[in-house]
Amino acid sequence: MFFASDNAAGIAPEILAAIAKVNDGKALAYGRDHVTAQAEQRFSEMFEREVAVFFVATGTAANALALAHLTAPWDAVLCHHEAHIATDECGAPEFFGGGLKLIPLAGEGCKIAPSTLEHALDKGQWGGPHHVTPKVLSLSQSTEAGTIYRVDEIRELAEIAHAHGLAVHVDGARFANALARTNASLAEATWKAGVDVLSFGATKGGALAAEAIVFFDPARGANMPDRRKRGGQLISKHRFVAAQLDAYLADGLWLKLARHANAMADRLAAGLAGAGLVPVWPVEANEVFVALPAPVDARLKAAGATYYPWVSEALPNGNTLPRDTTLVRLVTSFATTSDEVDRFVAVARAS
Amino acid sequence: MFFASDNAAGIAPEILAAIAKVNDGKALAYGRDHVTAQAEQRFSEMFEREVAVFFVATGTAANALALAHLTAPWDAVLCHHEAHIATDECGAPEFFGGGLKLIPLAGEGCKIAPSTLEHALDKGQWGGPHHVTPKVLSLSQSTEAGTIYRVDEIRELAEIAHAHGLAVHVDGARFANALARTNASLAEATWKAGVDVLSFGATKGGALAAEAIVFFDPARGANMPDRRKRGGQLISKHRFVAAQLDAYLADGLWLKLARHANAMADRLAAGLAGAGLVPVWPVEANEVFVALPAPVDARLKAAGATYYPWVSEALPNGNTLPRDTTLVRLVTSFATTSDEVDRFVAVARAS
Amino acid sequence: MFFASDNAAGIAPEILAAIAKVNDGKALAYGRDHVTAQAEQRFSEMFEREVAVFFVATGTAANALALAHLTAPWDAVLCHHEAHIATDECGAPEFFGGGLKLIPLAGEGCKIAPSTLEHALDKGQWGGPHHVTPKVLSLSQSTEAGTIYRVDEIRELAEIAHAHGLAVHVDGARFANALARTNASLAEATWKAGVDVLSFGATKGGALAAEAIVFFDPARGANMPDRRKRGGQLISKHRFVAAQLDAYLADGLWLKLARHANAMADRLAAGLAGAGLVPVWPVEANEVFVALPAPVDARLKAAGATYYPWVSEALPNGNTLPRDTTLVRLVTSFATTSDEVDRFVAVARAS
Amino acid sequence: MFFASDNAAGIAPEILAAIAKVNDGKALAYGRDHVTAQAEQRFSEMFEREVAVFFVATGTAANALALAHLTAPWDAVLCHHEAHIATDECGAPEFFGGGLKLIPLAGEGCKIAPSTLEHALDKGQWGGPHHVTPKVLSLSQSTEAGTIYRVDEIRELAEIAHAHGLAVHVDGARFANALARTNASLAEATWKAGVDVLSFGATKGGALAAEAIVFFDPARGANMPDRRKRGGQLISKHRFVAAQLDAYLADGLWLKLARHANAMADRLAAGLAGAGLVPVWPVEANEVFVALPAPVDARLKAAGATYYPWVSEALPNGNTLPRDTTLVRLVTSFATTSDEVDRFVAVARAS
Repeated sequence: MFFASDNAAGIAPEILAAIAKVNDGKALAYGRDHVTAQAEQRFSEMFEREVAVFFVATGTAANALALAHLTAPWDAVLCHHEAHIATDECGAPEFFGGGLKLIPLAGEGCKIAPSTLEHALDKGQWGGPHHVTPKVLSLSQSTEAGTIYRVDEIRELAEIAHAHGLAVHVDGARFANALARTNASLAEATWKAGVDVLSFGATKGGALAAEAIVFFDPARGANMPDRRKRGGQLISKHRFVAAQLDAYLADGLWLKLARHANAMADRLAAGLAGAGLVPVWPVEANEVFVALPAPVDARLKAAGATYYPWVSEALPNGNTLPRDTTLVRLVTSFATTSDEVDRFVAVARAS
Repeated sequence: MFFASDNAAGIAPEILAAIAKVNDGKALAYGRDHVTAQAEQRFSEMFEREVAVFFVATGTAANALALAHLTAPWDAVLCHHEAHIATDECGAPEFFGGGLKLIPLAGEGCKIAPSTLEHALDKGQWGGPHHVTPKVLSLSQSTEAGTIYRVDEIRELAEIAHAHGLAVHVDGARFANALARTNASLAEATWKAGVDVLSFGATKGGALAAEAIVFFDPARGANMPDRRKRGGQLISKHRFVAAQLDAYLADGLWLKLARHANAMADRLAAGLAGAGLVPVWPVEANEVFVALPAPVDARLKAAGATYYPWVSEALPNGNTLPRDTTLVRLVTSFATTSDEVDRFVAVARAS
Repeated sequence: MFFASDNAAGIAPEILAAIAKVNDGKALAYGRDHVTAQAEQRFSEMFEREVAVFFVATGTAANALALAHLTAPWDAVLCHHEAHIATDECGAPEFFGGGLKLIPLAGEGCKIAPSTLEHALDKGQWGGPHHVTPKVLSLSQSTEAGTIYRVDEIRELAEIAHAHGLAVHVDGARFANALARTNASLAEATWKAGVDVLSFGATKGGALAAEAIVFFDPARGANMPDRRKRGGQLISKHRFVAAQLDAYLADGLWLKLARHANAMADRLAAGLAGAGLVPVWPVEANEVFVALPAPVDARLKAAGATYYPWVSEALPNGNTLPRDTTLVRLVTSFATTSDEVDRFVAVARAS
Repeated sequence: MFFASDNAAGIAPEILAAIAKVNDGKALAYGRDHVTAQAEQRFSEMFEREVAVFFVATGTAANALALAHLTAPWDAVLCHHEAHIATDECGAPEFFGGGLKLIPLAGEGCKIAPSTLEHALDKGQWGGPHHVTPKVLSLSQSTEAGTIYRVDEIRELAEIAHAHGLAVHVDGARFANALARTNASLAEATWKAGVDVLSFGATKGGALAAEAIVFFDPARGANMPDRRKRGGQLISKHRFVAAQLDAYLADGLWLKLARHANAMADRLAAGLAGAGLVPVWPVEANEVFVALPAPVDARLKAAGATYYPWVSEALPNGNTLPRDTTLVRLVTSFATTSDEVDRFVAVARAS
């Protein structure tokens, strides 16, 4: 009963097979190989336009390199105050960005409302020489609360951002889970809605360690090879990171894996709701957040369930946690089984 | 005939098998898993003392994180002027080190002579507030010229460094190749000879992407988890990088693979010498550098051989390249075959 | 009627005279002169303990160098969300600190309440490798709202900070104005109350360009000479910055100038209150914030008064600005005259 | 007998008077005052074209801000290996430049020969992703050896630099001394010869603390206000730094002061040569470098003379210092007197 993180899952068999497959023979290092070329080409095809794409080993690196590339050090990135980039990357964007600043915005369910963005841009004190200049809006898709932005919501935010001279970045560590829910295409959910740069995650979805930075305007990617190298993220045996991403995107694997994870989250949410444990936010991706009464919490832990407590100021308006409960995060993955979910629910409701 | 780099080789079968083996089941992410614990333990055992070890994805990251951790931004790292950290990492040490400075030293065969080090430390203008302060001596083992430092040479350099208040770092991207040649133990070749921190490479030796930063005084590693995370190098599915290093060090695999690579370099050097193409530097690891006459160069390329031209100011004293030749670097790996070597030699000597 | 900033004032005559006085003859550069030695000695005397003190040219540099020196890049500084370091220095602390993070806290009148600090430290997610680690509490004295911390308030905040492992920094750009009001001694208002490092401003108080970073534990200042030099803040003709600070601290000049500025602020506040324009925050230093009705604003501008509009989310609880008013900041200085104040009040009340 | 540095001199009377003069009344801070506007205008007039100019407090800041502004962090600056930016600024360019790299070039008399520059650019390994990319050639005028570049020499170097895509920066801490010697106009010695950016120093020439960064293409200066502010170099009472530069450039004061300093250096060189102490490099600005026999050195010090020993690898070809001598640097300034020079020479030759 492993619900600590989708990072706790291993490698999807198709992706491990792809690694083994390209292990045959030799290839030039640092991306000058045909596996890389093929994977890059696949990104352009899947996104229905020519993109500049860069593969890296971690999501933190993807986000930090992307944000640094979109800003000067005296610029600022607006994001939700509980965004992964703001709270869980130990200051990586600030480091890679030469001391750039993240401006935290509030929002229920870890989503930024258009009015919040507009207010921040219009009312804040911005611009040199004394103030930093907002240059990027960064959205998490899915969000840290397991919610998602609909295409129309992205478009509305992007329009505000663009009107104020900001580029739009999406931290897509769980991008597949969001798209599996909405059925929007990769193109519709990104550049067609106004997204300029995407950190496209595959690791949480089933890869060993593979993330991609996707620039929808290839010109924006100029000099990213230099930044990536000096950032320690140019994988030498590059075909193996490329093979992971290529296999992930091939034959709809990414969607298949994400749909399974989402379905497991739905099953978990439904089971818990049936036990009176209603998730605090809508379950829209592969995460379920519930307030566990202390005895339930104790029982689950005794039964060997793994999960983390959670702290948030983004609870629905007026919602406070019931007394003597702990908010916990339950994450499903491509490797979560129905049996695992059902046992968890059974232990939770046993009384 | 792939001699472009040892990075052109794939994954050693034992290492790929180890990745597949730990793919069974789930494990906590970010290093809180038992595969990581086991691999860390193995490092302490292999190095015959308790070490603090941190796994990362690239050699550039290992070097840059290690050097940044040993210095303040106003400090300097002394290294050979053709060291990988100085010329081939696009300024990664400077970036991770907040603008630290690399001080280039000359030396035949890319090795730093004790007298050179001593002269630099004694005669240079060092120390604040106006000058940077040397805090690290960084050696490459094997060097960028395919030569190696003997244990006694390391000890002599380390004594000078320590006497001047410098720590000793070793860029060990090809550390196994050096040890396969000298038969020194890991302990003898490192902390017993005065090395303080080692970037221990496994990727060039046969891993997919796995490097380790080893602090022989574990206290020096304090806060490296923070630095690694914000440097984008904390691999989430950490067991897979740990498994690579664990398998590499288990049962002498690392030495077996390195010995093969070295043997292939010896075979290549002998064959070329037999054709009048004597390596410009002693072949002590898995690299052979020869001056190819233009027709030979052309013939090899026509035959599909892959290798890179090389530029160096570290040629043996008085040695200039013969007219109309190109210095080239030939790198062998665990995957190089005798047949490949023999065909290369045959093409080179055919006339 | 110059109320735009205390920076609009010139140099106090005593300080200009001190500059001229030390212009006689030659002196070693970079602080190895006796004027510097004397000024440093005066700091130790005035603060009643041996301090390590470093002179720089701007308040932004003083703050950024101090904060960088108290933190590692993966650390965080807690401060009021409208603190000068957070909003008006274009990211200088983040730049000098290698990408450190400022954590904004709310608080009426730009003051941080002990409960707010305690809540932030206890409830936030802090600590590596994923989260930044709070290492400094930075207070502005006087605050950006013209309010001040009493000695007891500083002590209470410092105790919380120290108990959580944080150092206490004070941005004292207007430190003299705060002390002129409370009659606390320099020692009482700083290290005796738990302050570890002070950015002591003289420029706003009457100097040309002179600020001091004061470490109450001199050991904390180690290597600051290197950081200051590479930060571009080691003034070569150092005696001239030292002379400014020495003259400022001599014979109570700093207090005399601050008392005048405060008295002018009081006179202004009283005059405006008499006209129904009650300051939104208590006037405790040399700044007055009032909500000006549009016609009054227009009249004052027409009369040549200089001041800036202000935006704040730190208004007293429940306080919203009256409709059709603009919040403005009025700053007095050592050079403000009663006549200037009275004319301003007269124009404001004329109707 | 103060020959330690031109920084040991005080403030030229005309400049101190200018400071006092603008102290009358109040003015908006941060450069929005008419003294600043006038000084900026004077720069454009003196350089015979519209320039973008930024005033700062130190030469280190001027250089570091300028170089950072001309490069991305993965770029490199080529300079003489004994250039002030390379050896005496404690890594400031690397810090401000986000870890940019300085590439040291050799050259007699601290001057870079065109062939050296051409060789470095043509033969070095440059360009991403693995190597840094040269983007700036930085020349010191006068050089650290007291020599100067003639206009034709600058032009030749600039043409090579531009042909390779590099901008040309001049560290003009002693720019006036160079121009006082050549009689070239400011325009002829800078943009007309191919210089793109100049750090124009006034402090060594007679100011309190005032340097200017001059962009001959104003567009290159975009966003420098932000960089300067976050670099801690936006002087709040800006009129006082502007007044210094304005007075320095007015009525030929800068040239008058520099001519005097140069004349004193000539007198010193002639006197010493008459005593058999011939300068090791041509005396072209306000610095004299001589090898002092130990007894002479001792006698001068006993007589109270102040100067620094010097270490250089840029001595004229084949020139080694005579045994038992110390190379010393003697710097004259606008405040050096004939009497001081004559006494120094007298002590040096006494025997």
